[in-house]
Amino acid sequence: MRLDKRSSVPLYAQLKELLSERIENGEYAPGQKIPTELALCSELELSRPTVRQAIAELVAEGLLIILKGKGTYVVSEPQRVVLDRFSGFTFSFLAGKTIEEKQFLDYTLAKKLPADVASAFGKGKTPDCYEIAWTNQDEGTVYAFAVSYIPQQMFPDLDESIRQGKRMIDITANRYAYLPQRVSHRIFVRPADAEEARILDVSRGTPVLVSQSVLLSRSGAPCEVNTTVMRGERVLLNYEIIGK
Amino acid sequence: MRLDKRSSVPLYAQLKELLSERIENGEYAPGQKIPTELALCSELELSRPTVRQAIAELVAEGLLIILKGKGTYVVSEPQRVVLDRFSGFTFSFLAGKTIEEKQFLDYTLAKKLPADVASAFGKGKTPDCYEIAWTNQDEGTVYAFAVSYIPQQMFPDLDESIRQGKRMIDITANRYAYLPQRVSHRIFVRPADAEEARILDVSRGTPVLVSQSVLLSRSGAPCEVNTTVMRGERVLLNYEIIGK
Repeated sequence: MRLDKRSSVPLYAQLKELLSERIENGEYAPGQKIPTELALCSELELSRPTVRQAIAELVAEGLLIILKGKGTYVVSEPQRVVLDRFSGFTFSFLAGKTIEEKQFLDYTLAKKLPADVASAFGKGKTPDCYEIAWTNQDEGTVYAFAVSYIPQQMFPDLDESIRQGKRMIDITANRYAYLPQRVSHRIFVRPADAEEARILDVSRGTPVLVSQSVLLSRSGAPCEVNTTVMRGERVLLNYEIIGK
Repeated sequence: MRLDKRSSVPLYAQLKELLSERIENGEYAPGQKIPTELALCSELELSRPTVRQAIAELVAEGLLIILKGKGTYVVSEPQRVVLDRFSGFTFSFLAGKTIEEKQFLDYTLAKKLPADVASAFGKGKTPDCYEIAWTNQDEGTVYAFAVSYIPQQMFPDLDESIRQGKRMIDITANRYAYLPQRVSHRIFVRPADAEEARILDVSRGTPVLVSQSVLLSRSGAPCEVNTTVMRGERVLLNYEIIGK
């Protein structure tokens, strides 16, 4: 695109478009320094306030970042944690092979189930459940915060087993009838609530990618309901190749 | 929680937490009006500026909304389009049964493939591809913007067929060898670029939920690469129940 000084569109807005185009087509690459204000003024025959306003708005929109004393840079694509062979089983507690990598936050009997969890257990009396919360980290950064509800009746001493650091293979021994065989899985985006924001180290209201799984045992009864919130800019879910 | 006037945490910040809690536990329900500033002042023995600042910040964070002349309301959960039986095939052009519901934006030979699309077609020469872009709407609101690349060699007259309004069953007739049989599918969140923001009617930089599918024909060759960006607050992806 070219700037049109006779257009009714303000010049700073045209410049914003032009700079965005250069960022999107890679002329200004992620992590790269863009030309100085003065260089842009002279290249495009624009006044300094025009250039400054365009840059300020692109900074506000998150495309550019100003590093004090160094210059203005194109924001880099964040490094993402690639979750390969992702499915509704990925964040299941009971379907996990080990528990060593989990940073537990909680594993106690839930006082009250969230409404969506209670409804996942179906109509009628909701079972007493352990609430098991943990985080997953990558290089010191928490990228996922998971909470699972598991009926106490199916795994009576689950809190004690976790406290003792039992291995998953021992926790699930003789409980095969209660292990997840099928899963109903949903994905959506919503703003982080206060607790999620604190644990994921983002501002409240930051969009998080939510994975919700209702895991069913062989009998078809739910044996676990898992809700995992992920930092949206931090993860990439790679589903398995599936056939039609 | 209770307010602690002797705490080092400012009262407005404590009040923010208190109001957030009431919103999160449903005491103030989505879409409901919260008490007036004066009512909160008297209930909690707070000054008007304290109450006003807490509310202003919750408005800025998107939890509350002020409707002029009516009062302050809890923001409602947005109505979502539930995409049932979601999979990597959902937004495929070639796997679709009909094309009537699509609002086409473009169906021409692509001048140049985006780098990630070219790499999905594998090493070596990238095939000439049709670029087919459309939107999906729900009650007048665009919730998804899809772009598919389809090798011209597999579907030579695809642009003409779409222009003529051919039915899907006629477009795919005798081309079964080139229809999608398997799919590699990924999901992530990133900020909308300028074009996506315009088409989805959101601000640039708004987080969008991205679905990318590489669809493979019977021979294993990619017959379509689809990228669909969705308004994060507008959709819910409901995956099919799968077995382990």
